Amino acid sequence: MSGRNVFYAQSGGVTSVINASAWGLIQGCRARPDTFGKVYAGREGILGALDENLIDTSLFSDDTLEGLVWTPGGAFGSCRYKLKGLEQNRTEYERLIEVFDAHEIGYFFYNGGNDSMDTAHKVSLLASELGYPLTCIGIPKTIDNDLAATDNCPGFGSVAKYIATSTAEAGFDIASMCGSSTKVFVMEVMGRHAGWIAAAAGLASEQASQPPHIILFPELTFDADDFLNEVDRCVDEYGYCVVVASEGIAYEDGSFVAETGTKDAFGHAQLGGVAPALAHMVGERTGHKYHYAIADYLQRSARHISAKTDLDQAIAVGEAAAHYAAQGMQAVMPAIIRGEGDTYTWTIEPADLADVANHEKFMPRDFITENGYGITDAARDYLAPLIEGECFPPFKRGMPEYLRLDLSRCIEKKLAPRGQ
Amino acid sequence: MSGRNVFYAQSGGVTSVINASAWGLIQGCRARPDTFGKVYAGREGILGALDENLIDTSLFSDDTLEGLVWTPGGAFGSCRYKLKGLEQNRTEYERLIEVFDAHEIGYFFYNGGNDSMDTAHKVSLLASELGYPLTCIGIPKTIDNDLAATDNCPGFGSVAKYIATSTAEAGFDIASMCGSSTKVFVMEVMGRHAGWIAAAAGLASEQASQPPHIILFPELTFDADDFLNEVDRCVDEYGYCVVVASEGIAYEDGSFVAETGTKDAFGHAQLGGVAPALAHMVGERTGHKYHYAIADYLQRSARHISAKTDLDQAIAVGEAAAHYAAQGMQAVMPAIIRGEGDTYTWTIEPADLADVANHEKFMPRDFITENGYGITDAARDYLAPLIEGECFPPFKRGMPEYLRLDLSRCIEKKLAPRGQ
Repeated sequence: MSGRNVFYAQSGGVTSVINASAWGLIQGCRARPDTFGKVYAGREGILGALDENLIDTSLFSDDTLEGLVWTPGGAFGSCRYKLKGLEQNRTEYERLIEVFDAHEIGYFFYNGGNDSMDTAHKVSLLASELGYPLTCIGIPKTIDNDLAATDNCPGFGSVAKYIATSTAEAGFDIASMCGSSTKVFVMEVMGRHAGWIAAAAGLASEQASQPPHIILFPELTFDADDFLNEVDRCVDEYGYCVVVASEGIAYEDGSFVAETGTKDAFGHAQLGGVAPALAHMVGERTGHKYHYAIADYLQRSARHISAKTDLDQAIAVGEAAAHYAAQGMQAVMPAIIRGEGDTYTWTIEPADLADVANHEKFMPRDFITENGYGITDAARDYLAPLIEGECFPPFKRGMPEYLRLDLSRCIEKKLAPRGQ
Repeated sequence: MSGRNVFYAQSGGVTSVINASAWGLIQGCRARPDTFGKVYAGREGILGALDENLIDTSLFSDDTLEGLVWTPGGAFGSCRYKLKGLEQNRTEYERLIEVFDAHEIGYFFYNGGNDSMDTAHKVSLLASELGYPLTCIGIPKTIDNDLAATDNCPGFGSVAKYIATSTAEAGFDIASMCGSSTKVFVMEVMGRHAGWIAAAAGLASEQASQPPHIILFPELTFDADDFLNEVDRCVDEYGYCVVVASEGIAYEDGSFVAETGTKDAFGHAQLGGVAPALAHMVGERTGHKYHYAIADYLQRSARHISAKTDLDQAIAVGEAAAHYAAQGMQAVMPAIIRGEGDTYTWTIEPADLADVANHEKFMPRDFITENGYGITDAARDYLAPLIEGECFPPFKRGMPEYLRLDLSRCIEKKLAPRGQ
């Protein structure tokens, strides 16, 4: 006897290991056929539910789906689409329930960040109000590492490893040639409000003379004069200066150093170009030759340098989500809990979605050095285990062999298009 | 009995495998103690000779120096410093010979690109004219892959692998979300005059629908209207468009799409920002949401994703250089020769520096598709073997374990400072 069907959706910016969570969940469901029926994945995330574009993952064998473990991006498609509040747009939530009902879906797994945990929570409230039997479980995912209630977020460790490695490598390059060439290098990294990714660059150095010499965190106010003085000091003392800057750094008046004036679908200001802004500032004030890099999507899709710890945790939260649902839990998210003691250990425990939704976890002030430009030993102790371990994808003819799922066939629709 | 001493210098932009060539050379010299005395490396390349800053590599054990095989950047320092013509600045060449004489140097190995091969050639001419016994050997190195007389250049294969991998990975990311988010992604890559690096991105795709959809080569004139039409076509047909652009693309009048107005030490126009230039163009004309990445130094220092073929060849040209010098050859460079047949094979043969110096090897037109935006099967056949194989560095606590040589102690100077 088979249980009720499952709906799984990937949400928001994708990561190099979000598919590993999908694999963990699907395996967790396949292992419990009495509880779970078919696992449908939303084509383009929650939009797949609203538009009734459901991918039947039972069409794919275990052997095929194992490729999810080493494939970056969102294999079923993700989206930037935030459901409004229940009062403002009750119709949309009702549409979700209508689609779930039409396809005998009794389990909703939402794989995303703050906004998604909020949505999963609201869907559980509405389903309960309507008397529709629906288990709602969040699965954490965000490179920003800013979710509450979990020690860290799947997706972050791999970006951290990429950024720390890239900073170290570029640092060797610049150190080689600073006598006659580039003296200041600025690397822009993601992180709108929380400086976790920028902080990870700090793992590249073991002493003050080693890059990165300056890290700019969005948690602190950017002071151009103080920054330029510090650049000068580093060039004087070390011969060069490597700067790692969060895209979200802002002046005292709240304006971003790299504001473009446009907003994304979530109403957040769209950023870009903090590296050129800083680099030109340096060039004008100090005359030093500069270069800058903007890793952009490269950093969050770099599965070739993902951290094994991150991958293991991404799979584990997917598996735990299936386990929690099978146990009858409601409106929870598998959270990563760090063990006590000097050796890093972790376990997975359920956290209430209500405690996770719409909170942002910033870098604690004691993770940032007094002058505001580096990370402390406390930050190192926190960050270092998260980038541990290598888990290279398989390679073929020199290229990573990533999985391309054929998503052209969604299951047959049973409802009229939404809004009709 | 020990032979005359050796001077080795790294020149110009560094790569992820230039140190592997140093390792090959040093091992080649250590294996022939009757021919070679001490191997001195120039601190900051040729400037190390002019300023008599010589690093005695015999102070480092084989075990230590083996780290050169997996460490990016220039371990002894490199520089952007071009010696002028013999007529224009004979003093500088004479100073070189003076320093070589003071330290009983009978072998000059210059590890660089076009300019360096030219310099090595000129030094050999002057030494011969002055009756100073000096063997001059070039060792090829350039990510630009633009050296004549060699099938490919050490340093290029690893950048090619990084760019192809990054393009594939970012492509998965954008494909996941293009329905509701970024539709056009532009990645800027190095390559001022030759489009080899941009071409390598083409290895990420197996069919037209897969990224990159558009590659922009510096060998062809950039036509903004045609480009924007092609972007639109790709977005219509595939839902998104990934563009890989060489920094050196230019309009019909010769002006660079991303000219900054400044020049480097070699008198070449300094470029930067072709990605934002193109991305803004796309945004204004089509209204599509865009993102862009500038890998900059990350691409040429990414030792963590170097190609094994490239690494093997980098070591081999270093070893061959020692072999050629021991054989009494003069003014040659070890060139990589591709074997006939379907299976990729390569050997190393000497090429005259005079035939290499100051030539640039561009992409043949038949390597570029007719519409100018892709690579042909001929290009794939040429490029694919160069990115083959993985050679990850050792990792420790999640980070590549790179070698940091202590360069603080140069050997005792015997001459007055240059210019005095």
